[in-house]
Amino acid sequence: METAQRPPIRAVVFDAYGTLFDVYSIGVLAEQLFPGKGEALTRLWRERQIDYTRLRTLSNRYQPFDVVTREALQWTADALGLALTETAQTQLMARYAQLSAHADALEALRALKAMGMRLAILSNGTPAMLDVLVEHTGMHGMFERVLSVDTVGQYKTAAAAYQLGPDALGLAAREMLFVSSNGWDACGAAWFGYTTIWINRSGLPAERLGVTPDATGNSLHEVVRFITTRT
Amino acid sequence: METAQRPPIRAVVFDAYGTLFDVYSIGVLAEQLFPGKGEALTRLWRERQIDYTRLRTLSNRYQPFDVVTREALQWTADALGLALTETAQTQLMARYAQLSAHADALEALRALKAMGMRLAILSNGTPAMLDVLVEHTGMHGMFERVLSVDTVGQYKTAAAAYQLGPDALGLAAREMLFVSSNGWDACGAAWFGYTTIWINRSGLPAERLGVTPDATGNSLHEVVRFITTRT
Repeated sequence: METAQRPPIRAVVFDAYGTLFDVYSIGVLAEQLFPGKGEALTRLWRERQIDYTRLRTLSNRYQPFDVVTREALQWTADALGLALTETAQTQLMARYAQLSAHADALEALRALKAMGMRLAILSNGTPAMLDVLVEHTGMHGMFERVLSVDTVGQYKTAAAAYQLGPDALGLAAREMLFVSSNGWDACGAAWFGYTTIWINRSGLPAERLGVTPDATGNSLHEVVRFITTRT
Repeated sequence: METAQRPPIRAVVFDAYGTLFDVYSIGVLAEQLFPGKGEALTRLWRERQIDYTRLRTLSNRYQPFDVVTREALQWTADALGLALTETAQTQLMARYAQLSAHADALEALRALKAMGMRLAILSNGTPAMLDVLVEHTGMHGMFERVLSVDTVGQYKTAAAAYQLGPDALGLAAREMLFVSSNGWDACGAAWFGYTTIWINRSGLPAERLGVTPDATGNSLHEVVRFITTRT
């Protein structure tokens, strides 16, 4: 019923970290470097990284995502009592620069591309970080635009970050499907006005933020299904 | 050397939750309600509560702290697979409204008061929540002002929140000592321009945010010591 009033989807905008690229794929290296602590390091590092993006944006103290990521790694090593050598830090940051793609990513992107969908990335990562990841995972040529919040110096969920999509693609937010595996990012995008799908890879409960993504799925194949039923 | 150039401290501004009031004092009730899960519930609830304050501020979707606190509790119960009855929710929220004071709080406040220091609270809590806590813990009459971010509809670490201090007390931020047990709050206040002391109650590593509080201590007695050496 409600869907009849909604505009058709003209582009799909992907979050990068966690959605296309597996932020936990550094776990193997982390475990080799710090036996028994790899999982905790990987999880706390990710949490602190996100905390720092939010704090810096709230306080208007932007630093690029690679800087924030490195600082979050250093804090996490401190918190876990790990001696983070320069070599270990360099190795972990290098691995972070070359995360694996999630297994469902390339197939879903190809299917959307075959349907004639316009595709973009909108990420907290720097342009250089995103370029390396796209190249490394064989996604070159898939995206019309790779948008980085670095352009505006504010991390998600600030409106200026989400505004990059409409500005770059010349579409209203509602005409774009924003795809994120991060529940808070899907909520932020929904608040902003995108049509949104939350790819709930970890089976987490829905955020209690008074806003609900238009759809929820457990893999990027759900994006293809959503588009098929909406266009 | 550097201290010679700093203005004397004319007021002390306290964070409330975690700093004066023990957010983990709900642990006993939480454990009674959900045996074996009390600690996890208390910790995750606090983390999600802070996450939600930041997300709502970044996205300009303010809701008062009691609403955010309740929503964070509901998410946490979902995440831990706990059946949160209306009764249990009401009990936990009632306990949150009447947190214990930290053991060092009243003595430190009295000592500062005896030194003629102007005292204030600057908190994410609503005015009603703060009034109840101040009354309940016997701190009535201690504070010249109890400032709530509810007035500006933005949570810390937004500048509008920290600006409440200078506006209410008619002092420059550097003339006030901002006291917080939350490392991120001490950093946010330092970025804003307050003289800051981080009361590191849990022995956590310093945040890696490129800013350092003027002092660090492990109890509120350190606030008295700091003031004594600076005035």
